[in-house]
Amino acid sequence: MTDFQNVIDKIHADLKDKVNRGLVASYIPELSNVDPHQFGLHLKHMDGRSFSTGVSQKAFSIQSISKVLTLAMALPLYSENIWKRVDVEPSGNPFNHLSLLELENGIPRNPLINAGALVVADILVSRLTNPKEEFLQYVRDLANDQTINYNYVVAESERLTGFNNFAAANLLKAYHNLENNVDDVLDFYFHQCSIEMNCEQLSNAFFMFANHGICTQGKHHLTHSRAKRINAIMLTCGFYDEAGEFAFEVGLPGKSGVGGGIVALLPHHFTITVWSPGLNPKGNSLLGMQALEQFTSETKLSIF
Amino acid sequence: MTDFQNVIDKIHADLKDKVNRGLVASYIPELSNVDPHQFGLHLKHMDGRSFSTGVSQKAFSIQSISKVLTLAMALPLYSENIWKRVDVEPSGNPFNHLSLLELENGIPRNPLINAGALVVADILVSRLTNPKEEFLQYVRDLANDQTINYNYVVAESERLTGFNNFAAANLLKAYHNLENNVDDVLDFYFHQCSIEMNCEQLSNAFFMFANHGICTQGKHHLTHSRAKRINAIMLTCGFYDEAGEFAFEVGLPGKSGVGGGIVALLPHHFTITVWSPGLNPKGNSLLGMQALEQFTSETKLSIF
Amino acid sequence: MTDFQNVIDKIHADLKDKVNRGLVASYIPELSNVDPHQFGLHLKHMDGRSFSTGVSQKAFSIQSISKVLTLAMALPLYSENIWKRVDVEPSGNPFNHLSLLELENGIPRNPLINAGALVVADILVSRLTNPKEEFLQYVRDLANDQTINYNYVVAESERLTGFNNFAAANLLKAYHNLENNVDDVLDFYFHQCSIEMNCEQLSNAFFMFANHGICTQGKHHLTHSRAKRINAIMLTCGFYDEAGEFAFEVGLPGKSGVGGGIVALLPHHFTITVWSPGLNPKGNSLLGMQALEQFTSETKLSIF
Amino acid sequence: MTDFQNVIDKIHADLKDKVNRGLVASYIPELSNVDPHQFGLHLKHMDGRSFSTGVSQKAFSIQSISKVLTLAMALPLYSENIWKRVDVEPSGNPFNHLSLLELENGIPRNPLINAGALVVADILVSRLTNPKEEFLQYVRDLANDQTINYNYVVAESERLTGFNNFAAANLLKAYHNLENNVDDVLDFYFHQCSIEMNCEQLSNAFFMFANHGICTQGKHHLTHSRAKRINAIMLTCGFYDEAGEFAFEVGLPGKSGVGGGIVALLPHHFTITVWSPGLNPKGNSLLGMQALEQFTSETKLSIF
Repeated sequence: MTDFQNVIDKIHADLKDKVNRGLVASYIPELSNVDPHQFGLHLKHMDGRSFSTGVSQKAFSIQSISKVLTLAMALPLYSENIWKRVDVEPSGNPFNHLSLLELENGIPRNPLINAGALVVADILVSRLTNPKEEFLQYVRDLANDQTINYNYVVAESERLTGFNNFAAANLLKAYHNLENNVDDVLDFYFHQCSIEMNCEQLSNAFFMFANHGICTQGKHHLTHSRAKRINAIMLTCGFYDEAGEFAFEVGLPGKSGVGGGIVALLPHHFTITVWSPGLNPKGNSLLGMQALEQFTSETKLSIF
Repeated sequence: MTDFQNVIDKIHADLKDKVNRGLVASYIPELSNVDPHQFGLHLKHMDGRSFSTGVSQKAFSIQSISKVLTLAMALPLYSENIWKRVDVEPSGNPFNHLSLLELENGIPRNPLINAGALVVADILVSRLTNPKEEFLQYVRDLANDQTINYNYVVAESERLTGFNNFAAANLLKAYHNLENNVDDVLDFYFHQCSIEMNCEQLSNAFFMFANHGICTQGKHHLTHSRAKRINAIMLTCGFYDEAGEFAFEVGLPGKSGVGGGIVALLPHHFTITVWSPGLNPKGNSLLGMQALEQFTSETKLSIF
Repeated sequence: MTDFQNVIDKIHADLKDKVNRGLVASYIPELSNVDPHQFGLHLKHMDGRSFSTGVSQKAFSIQSISKVLTLAMALPLYSENIWKRVDVEPSGNPFNHLSLLELENGIPRNPLINAGALVVADILVSRLTNPKEEFLQYVRDLANDQTINYNYVVAESERLTGFNNFAAANLLKAYHNLENNVDDVLDFYFHQCSIEMNCEQLSNAFFMFANHGICTQGKHHLTHSRAKRINAIMLTCGFYDEAGEFAFEVGLPGKSGVGGGIVALLPHHFTITVWSPGLNPKGNSLLGMQALEQFTSETKLSIF
Repeated sequence: MTDFQNVIDKIHADLKDKVNRGLVASYIPELSNVDPHQFGLHLKHMDGRSFSTGVSQKAFSIQSISKVLTLAMALPLYSENIWKRVDVEPSGNPFNHLSLLELENGIPRNPLINAGALVVADILVSRLTNPKEEFLQYVRDLANDQTINYNYVVAESERLTGFNNFAAANLLKAYHNLENNVDDVLDFYFHQCSIEMNCEQLSNAFFMFANHGICTQGKHHLTHSRAKRINAIMLTCGFYDEAGEFAFEVGLPGKSGVGGGIVALLPHHFTITVWSPGLNPKGNSLLGMQALEQFTSETKLSIF
């Protein structure tokens, strides 16, 4: 039986003093001011055990990791109709995000690229009475922690500088793939990305994806089939144009965010969250990627 | 000596009852309600003569034709610096307008595609004290007609539905190629496109491009070199992805608009404006293109 | 314990009389003449059991399935240097295959698209003394069947009509990513694709990918890590622009070929091969895709 | 009346000692060995006068300049059917030449990009009994000089290294836009590009484009309309992705080749040829571009 505590402690020890830690996201002050020396891991196993090392209790901006949670919330609300508005293919593409959207007539390549997540946000804005409140409650319930919150300063900074997202939302609107006002969808989207969680909270929130759709509290949020399909999307699309690399090197479904967090999971076994704010050139946590590579190398635990 | 009146009367007679007139632009009510049976021509010669036929005195929405006039106004204000922010190459491209902008890092391909015209609009918003008032006065002076005006209803309709332009402006902003707020630039842009002019007014306004930069009133608005260069841009970029076709079939510098107007000119000789609201699939006036092809075939007058 | 015989018999019964079976590949006579009504499955389990149904003993053209086998043979010969010449990212792209190659300076997106497989073929041509003989022997050994052979008529037909592959190989050569002559690489490539195998032989040949690199005869062909990585590439890149869809609907690493075969596998458990010659519009076996979807739905066996 | 001799002598004096002369094409030995210090001009006027300066009698490889001559020869043979197989729009594109071809289903953007010239070559191979002999005779007659010849060493070097052209021809073949064998079309194409001519011979050969289709010997090779249209294509497509720049800065129809030659013309007035082997980053003669800019600035002679 794998001694997870020992494994993650060793990873932490091996990597924590690395000089090359990548660059902290700099496009808004709130992200650029984060101390790059922080590094934490948390693993939650299906058998009930939890393992932590490093800065696993410090909250950070989850950013794109939130896209998996909005997808999980939207899927039961909108059912398979969602796949008429967003595809499930990897974008495989470091460039031309809007061009893909143009070439494909406003159908985003998958729900984990920004344009796809905007369509999912649009669905939640349409289907929920108080979208921001209800989504926050959903995340709190998944993580079983009522202290989780939006960072309103981060959301406002994104609103003031997120011109690429305004461009994407307007392009979706031009293709009739947004039901709501561009500003309303983006307000929701900037808030979802601003949520702050720590490694443990994320491992808990993603537990249901490893557990056939059932969260840590035993509630059945997703059917087994939908949980499985979201895992497939994470594997093929969760790391921008490094998705293939992550599948190749790590071999677990997962999702990264520019706040430096990565959540990954082995279905039927565990979720694992790593946080280190410095990013590699592709926008994924540099130490986070290395930590997960080392983790699956040492434990031989992967879906492949 | 060419009998211009006879030529344009014959063109008018040959084409005016055509059944296939293309489709009137339908994306805003103000354009979709225009009667497609209208058809007018006006030719203004450097020797002082003018020739009209058909509905040459009825004002229509000049739309993209305005891009040549903003460029002419911006060039003396911003000088050759403008070419650092927008290129002069044909886009040659029916699709992927935003993708080109992405591939080329926010430098629009030329000042006559929407993204390029937004950069020019941004320059005017920065350099003019009252941009909308001053540009309107510029157009009135060029056409020597103080009654020319914006159509505020058209401008407002564009603001409410012009999502593609919002997308382009935000993308330019993301690439730091807009100095002003997206909304301010678009407000100016939607107004410039909404200007209403008739064939005669347009022939007069474009007279300076055929006359080394000197307008009908004798004022030197542009240097000879700049007038020549704007003509070159019109020839290579004036008809979206039909620019090559227009050079090939007609052989005159010109610019079209989705209102159904086309202005063309033979340097040192004349300007000619055609208006018919129905558009071909590429967005250029269907009868207008045919009229100008017939005109250069019959007169043998072209730059080639 | 899953009753595999019962499951595959039911799938066969449910699908065998489907009217809509897709279109048989028609670009060469040898493929277009195959009877579309054939349908077979074979499953080989790690515990030694085998299960067959339908036309599981009839050989067909393995086509692109061969790309996984050349990759497996090349990897130990060329080691990690291979990843300097070919990437591991999904192409996610139904169109522009050569354009991707241009955009990415001659580095194919992954080893399972044609351009990537040509680079792998080039490696084998460089490293093997008698490339075609040695590769064929490798496949025979993996499948433990010395009767497997090339179909020389198919290979010659491909040579006469495979202009897209000639284009790709020449483009690779222009980017200095082929060491050998274009004709030599293509000769090898057309032969590898022409190999004929039946469902059982393919399940046997792919057994090592499910079994940590150890083939049915107990020979260690690949390290555990490399077997795992090839599985990751199959999952993210094995089905052209339907890779995301296959991961989403089926959830197994696999590879399809235009001959109508699909091999898939659950690591540590089994390999399964399906054959039905009719293809869906993306070029994957129509019944084959449906059969594997039904298989993972009914058995709940997938990597997710 | 313009003193052309004085103008070109001044240009020659101003530019001949420039240190920055660009880089000589290096992809085949025959081009890379050319002395970059050579610089010549020749102008042939419709009134019969000729003007030369510098190395105007030294033959060089005309390369892509030949594409205009094959088009002129093919047009009467194939008539307007040619425009079903090749378009007349500028490519405006420094990259992705093959991708454009893919996006546009095998219809090259215009006859002056390589793919388009291959289609024109295919037409000549189909329509002529002895394609290479007859085309060479056509060029000799146009230039009124029977000494003009292919450089067979250059043609053979291109055949051995022109992988991009092999890629393009095979892609055209895949789209059924080549009637003949790839090798036959490329053999013709590599020979047409290898023709060696000097500035005077080129000015003479292109005389018909300035003279309504009538060559220096008074023979009517092209209708007025077709001569005009080829001029339009030269203007919009003659300089790769610098076509807009050339129209903007020079304002004459023209065509460049990687041998360092540029031919330009003012319809009804003159042809002018410049040669300097060093190329700018876009592949056009660096001094040649500067010489023509200076020429039209000083003479004020342009089509605009």
